[in-house]
Amino acid sequence: MKLVTLTLAATVALSASPLVKKAQESGLQAIPTSKTELMKLIDNPKNKITPEKVALGKQLYFDPRLSKSGLISCNTCHNLSEGGDDGVSAAMGHKWTANPHHLNSPTVYNAVFFDAQFWDGRDPDLEKQAQGPMQAAPEMAATQEHVASTVNSMPEYVDAFKKAYGKDVKITFEKIADTIASFERTLVTPSAFDDYLNGDEKAMTAAQKKGLETFIDLGCATCHNGVALGQSMNMLNVVAEYKHMNVGDFKGDANGMVKVPTLRNVTQTAPYFHNGQIWSLQDAIKEMGRIQLGVAVTDAQADSVAEFLGALEGRKPDISVPMLPKSTATTPKPDMN
Amino acid sequence: MKLVTLTLAATVALSASPLVKKAQESGLQAIPTSKTELMKLIDNPKNKITPEKVALGKQLYFDPRLSKSGLISCNTCHNLSEGGDDGVSAAMGHKWTANPHHLNSPTVYNAVFFDAQFWDGRDPDLEKQAQGPMQAAPEMAATQEHVASTVNSMPEYVDAFKKAYGKDVKITFEKIADTIASFERTLVTPSAFDDYLNGDEKAMTAAQKKGLETFIDLGCATCHNGVALGQSMNMLNVVAEYKHMNVGDFKGDANGMVKVPTLRNVTQTAPYFHNGQIWSLQDAIKEMGRIQLGVAVTDAQADSVAEFLGALEGRKPDISVPMLPKSTATTPKPDMN
Repeated sequence: MKLVTLTLAATVALSASPLVKKAQESGLQAIPTSKTELMKLIDNPKNKITPEKVALGKQLYFDPRLSKSGLISCNTCHNLSEGGDDGVSAAMGHKWTANPHHLNSPTVYNAVFFDAQFWDGRDPDLEKQAQGPMQAAPEMAATQEHVASTVNSMPEYVDAFKKAYGKDVKITFEKIADTIASFERTLVTPSAFDDYLNGDEKAMTAAQKKGLETFIDLGCATCHNGVALGQSMNMLNVVAEYKHMNVGDFKGDANGMVKVPTLRNVTQTAPYFHNGQIWSLQDAIKEMGRIQLGVAVTDAQADSVAEFLGALEGRKPDISVPMLPKSTATTPKPDMN
Repeated sequence: MKLVTLTLAATVALSASPLVKKAQESGLQAIPTSKTELMKLIDNPKNKITPEKVALGKQLYFDPRLSKSGLISCNTCHNLSEGGDDGVSAAMGHKWTANPHHLNSPTVYNAVFFDAQFWDGRDPDLEKQAQGPMQAAPEMAATQEHVASTVNSMPEYVDAFKKAYGKDVKITFEKIADTIASFERTLVTPSAFDDYLNGDEKAMTAAQKKGLETFIDLGCATCHNGVALGQSMNMLNVVAEYKHMNVGDFKGDANGMVKVPTLRNVTQTAPYFHNGQIWSLQDAIKEMGRIQLGVAVTDAQADSVAEFLGALEGRKPDISVPMLPKSTATTPKPDMN
């Protein structure tokens, strides 16, 4: 999939400005304007996106009855009205339990572009990822049986699954997660930065272009690259210790690697870092300079980079509030304990 | 406001079928099809509905940052994707605290029609009602200062308030509640029952019409009347004790009066009663017959009434998921304690 976009980027680059070329050579990629090219990036050959799956997946994404308590949906922590996250330091779930590692909820917007899911990159795609929070005790705290029984108890859901997958579909926990993932794959937010890379010279302001230059010159694109500007695994603490590391015990995967968070919509996803300990974007930029690049980022540089990051505020998809099927006599009852 | 609809109802009744007349004579009223007539029912002369207030009120309704934790919005307990409520027995809020009186969250859909708000009817309108849950410790647990500071910290909100109320607007806690109420006033759900009362003979099925007749003959419309089919105060336990009364200590207002819940969308708002102790609609119908009417409602009668109640499943307004302004350096931080 990467080959395709590099080819596309190269095509655009032929007539592009020096800064656009510099951005592309630094590994920054635009969300393609062509629907066909976009589909190549966001679709899953093993779970093809269809309008039926997306509509159904949206309902499931917003349905709190998939949780043990009946109160927590995917949208609770990955709130599409906010930056696709929850705006709190550590994710908070069932029985008001904070994430035991004090991990911050990552945004769901543009998560489709990630090479790996979760802060430790343990899952390869959104289909697998969606299974995690539903079952995690401090999140939705549901069993696979609870989730499957809940969905199977409502004829409207059963009909929608038949429409999406054929009349012989077996509505399993995995199938439910797959369907949620199909919806999540559509949560892509093109921004002024993309318009700029895609050829609209005026899409970014002069200050944003200067910020992009600062961003590249400082070395930020070393980790924050690709379509998501942060989509693969990398070392945390390359040069120095993360000052706020003492909050939570997260140390990355077995090799100390951490999933680099996307910078798309980053102005809307404070607090920052895996443990949500920094609230100011400028402070976050400086802290990254210090621990990842060994650079003392000045206030002026941090402001400039923040200007560029503003150009990554994306146009969110227009989503209508879904109406959920009504519960039936066989729908599992909420359990607060 | 009541006079207006009675006049309208009387006009329609001139050419109406015997059952429509019987329904009207029992005090059942349709949601008017005329926008002018509807506005007379839903508008507040002291807080006129405008598109600007409704759009802004929708954002505030969905904004969890108005709560102390940053995690609970109006929509958490009055979920527009469900029946306008939360589907759990007792409302659950800040720090996973259940309502201390074990009170069930009433639906926000059609709450504009209520003569009084809250189970004990203590507030006269939605403007006043909206102030309660934001401040209640087991709900959103916010101070008035938290709510006002949060909104005032975001330029997008400030601009939207200026557009809605004029450039000299002071964004107070009360003004925020007023604006949320303007949005809530639009949450009206016309149904097959309304179409039927408004002259479309075929809008209800034969079984639903029979159910309407049963509903009236049993005496249900004694309390469940008006546009909301449940909008004023009445005695609970007229004839007998409510079997499940031992859950929670709610005894109504100072005179033992309880706000009669609306029956609109009742098929989507289980569990039932002020303490959410009954899950089956048929059981709820029988229990009401026993304690309010002194009637042993048969299974067949309960099924028939339930058929009619299905005709009250309304067409929900098409609402897009609002995008919320981003937090700033002065936005109060979430507090989980």
